[in-house]
Amino acid sequence: MGEARSGFRPQRRTPAETVPLADALHRVPVAPVTAPDALPGFARSTVDGYAVRAADTYGVFDGLPGYLDVAGAVRMGHPPDVAVGAGTVVSMPTGGMLPPGADAVVMVEYTEAVSDRTIEIVRPVAPGDGVVRADEDAAPGAELVPAGRPLRAQDLGMLAAAGITSVAVHARPRVTILSTGDEVVPPDTVALRPGQVRDATAVALAALVTEAGGEPAGAGIVPDDPGLLEAALRDALAGSDLVVVSAGSSVGARDETAAAVRRLGPPGVWCHGLAIRPGKPTLLAECAGVPVIGLPGNPRSAMVIFRLIGMPLVRLVGGCTRPPAEPVVRARLDRDLASAAGRLDVVQVRVAGGAASPVFGLSALLSVLTAADGYVIVPEEATGLDAGTEVDVTLYR
Amino acid sequence: MGEARSGFRPQRRTPAETVPLADALHRVPVAPVTAPDALPGFARSTVDGYAVRAADTYGVFDGLPGYLDVAGAVRMGHPPDVAVGAGTVVSMPTGGMLPPGADAVVMVEYTEAVSDRTIEIVRPVAPGDGVVRADEDAAPGAELVPAGRPLRAQDLGMLAAAGITSVAVHARPRVTILSTGDEVVPPDTVALRPGQVRDATAVALAALVTEAGGEPAGAGIVPDDPGLLEAALRDALAGSDLVVVSAGSSVGARDETAAAVRRLGPPGVWCHGLAIRPGKPTLLAECAGVPVIGLPGNPRSAMVIFRLIGMPLVRLVGGCTRPPAEPVVRARLDRDLASAAGRLDVVQVRVAGGAASPVFGLSALLSVLTAADGYVIVPEEATGLDAGTEVDVTLYR
Repeated sequence: MGEARSGFRPQRRTPAETVPLADALHRVPVAPVTAPDALPGFARSTVDGYAVRAADTYGVFDGLPGYLDVAGAVRMGHPPDVAVGAGTVVSMPTGGMLPPGADAVVMVEYTEAVSDRTIEIVRPVAPGDGVVRADEDAAPGAELVPAGRPLRAQDLGMLAAAGITSVAVHARPRVTILSTGDEVVPPDTVALRPGQVRDATAVALAALVTEAGGEPAGAGIVPDDPGLLEAALRDALAGSDLVVVSAGSSVGARDETAAAVRRLGPPGVWCHGLAIRPGKPTLLAECAGVPVIGLPGNPRSAMVIFRLIGMPLVRLVGGCTRPPAEPVVRARLDRDLASAAGRLDVVQVRVAGGAASPVFGLSALLSVLTAADGYVIVPEEATGLDAGTEVDVTLYR
Repeated sequence: MGEARSGFRPQRRTPAETVPLADALHRVPVAPVTAPDALPGFARSTVDGYAVRAADTYGVFDGLPGYLDVAGAVRMGHPPDVAVGAGTVVSMPTGGMLPPGADAVVMVEYTEAVSDRTIEIVRPVAPGDGVVRADEDAAPGAELVPAGRPLRAQDLGMLAAAGITSVAVHARPRVTILSTGDEVVPPDTVALRPGQVRDATAVALAALVTEAGGEPAGAGIVPDDPGLLEAALRDALAGSDLVVVSAGSSVGARDETAAAVRRLGPPGVWCHGLAIRPGKPTLLAECAGVPVIGLPGNPRSAMVIFRLIGMPLVRLVGGCTRPPAEPVVRARLDRDLASAAGRLDVVQVRVAGGAASPVFGLSALLSVLTAADGYVIVPEEATGLDAGTEVDVTLYR
């Protein structure tokens, strides 16, 4: 299973598109973005105080203040209209541009005005104190954001500071979601006939696609008919970067997806069946350059598998090489978990007060997922976990 | 600081609006949503096999199989057209509707067809085996999703299964972002004049508002002029659920926001100045029922404070009582961190191989934030943390 997840690496990547910074949160840059100019671009004061030549402050202390003449004041947003010379200072606001001749800024807290024109200084400064250098935030050509990592709020701020107001990112992968099954009807079906169920999977998968940075498109519900499935799959492949088939739950329906993929290949089926519970009947394939995931028929298994395998694939196709961290919390199992060696188990849990309580229930039940706060993975090599074991719970959000 | 964060709890909440399920991911229900009917609504098979009366299988084993007559087959999506009687079975697909008279389903793996009309069964089943009860996923009236918790993918699936295709959620809080400062110019300013800086904060804050479920609106840049600031703040209050002022960085500018808020109150300023670094000059206020946050002038401090205090406020106003978990990772500090007792320090860190390396640098530098993977909070009571200490790093995403 670990191998199935890491080993299936389709080549497809979405092309670049340019988006304004305001729409670029969590988008994935296609290339590193570098600073066109030095940032902040001029030496700035980091404090309110007085720009000085540091040498003029050497040796002062409370008992022996230095006295310096105030030659003028720097205004925010304007270049200084006065320089600092020997024995003179210029009044500075935080963020103001350092005047020529100055190499440090003394904080106002260590000064006192003794007249309109003269201040007393009681602490020495070294060159560079109270100052941000002109290229301290970024030198020209420095990398501001890397390729492949979704843009975070501060990355957008940095790009804005550098005057970069749009950025080339991978297009969102278009993910077509195809539901199948004679028993499946649209969620807006008010009165179900006996034997019918509403399509719970498509809307949930669409949400997970969105979370992974993709653009979901619902292709509706296809009955359990090989010809119709193949036609729907062919249509879906044409306009998609990834196709997800939420399979009918009967044996025959499960095999139909694989058969259709084989007919539509190459390269076709990459693997069919994973050593994972729930989720065994998962199909991973590639058809005409488009990755295809065949999910188990029951909604709960489909969602578990799509989180584990589908979302990483959406990110991969969308150029994301450094996926964001998942929220994970450490907790102690409050009962034993059985598991078979050689099979990865995904166990739904509630978390409270440092304890992880498994939510048991048939894999057909959605309520097991809605009751859970997160899930625990029991790895292939384990034959179960004892109560009291510390586990990592990946939390839903 | 902890008190400032937890103590400032404005009453404002956004009103309800109804959104379709496809747009409801991470939206916050205003009330619990309950199941109108039982789910799945009929007893379903969880396996491929044969519906039976469990009593007919008692005592069978490999050495002494039971023989039962196949009375018919259930088709997916259709009500059974045949019942199970004593000594008979009905063929079932996974998910099919249990026929009258049956109380269990035997997996096909434990059966063998001996003729067209007869199967051999080698394992007994108990009543309920291989079956989901009609109300096992939800009884009529059961809570499907709670109020106040952002909807997750599986919640949407559950609502779809219940035929609920739209949901009443809190409107996204409208958050107006006002930048101030004579030195601040729009990010699309190509050539800066000496002393000018581009507005890095507004676009980053807008991203954080979006992450917290709000709807950001930029109100542009106001120069350091009390009259203009007051006018802009008055305009912003009229159409907002929350107003964020990213203050000019000079002492005067910092005080102007507080003065304007006092003139526009009541109730006015709640607190001005927090024992936190960076972020000391933060202002928390309420004006005419709208919470107002005055942020420190430098972009890095503004972003740190907005994550800690602003995002929780956006969620609160948006009705979110159970905020999603943040991604947190445990790591060991790879050097000593100094801190003053009574002050909360927010330290930017890189994380690699289980080690958290502080990213040092002036609080005026945005590059410290873009270089960081997350942050560590050194609590008020600590006077620093030694190298080797295990810390929780909240990861950026």
